[in-house]
Amino acid sequence: MKLRVTVMPKNGVLDPQGKAIGHALGTLGFAGVGEVRAGKVIELELAETDPEAAKRQAGEMARRLLANMVIESFSVELA
Amino acid sequence: MKLRVTVMPKNGVLDPQGKAIGHALGTLGFAGVGEVRAGKVIELELAETDPEAAKRQAGEMARRLLANMVIESFSVELA
Repeated sequence: MKLRVTVMPKNGVLDPQGKAIGHALGTLGFAGVGEVRAGKVIELELAETDPEAAKRQAGEMARRLLANMVIESFSVELA
Repeated sequence: MKLRVTVMPKNGVLDPQGKAIGHALGTLGFAGVGEVRAGKVIELELAETDPEAAKRQAGEMARRLLANMVIESFSVELA
């Protein structure tokens, strides 16, 4: 089954990529842009067919590889 | 209001980052991992208060800056 893991910088952690995007949007003429945060999303196709077990497995993958738990948080959802 | 723009490589476009993640998951001992696709997610705080107008604005930002429309597709949702 297909899952989506979203990894975002934790609140309070500096996000230079988000800052750069916000700045670039201003340069392009977009007004009213507040905070911008940039993260990543990983779509996984897993052989596991039980939704809860698949989410647990994807969470384990996030903790071990996809996210740096010191500075990032993640969420898992069915895609 | 807060919006989330998700940018993914289009189907058929080579995704070396996703491939590398899939390979690394196998190396870590995770079995049953099929296709892996890696994209990015940008969370935007916009001054615009109308949901439809905000989504239109975020779509315009995606087309002009956040996504490379040749190889990537994007979706916009309220966060």
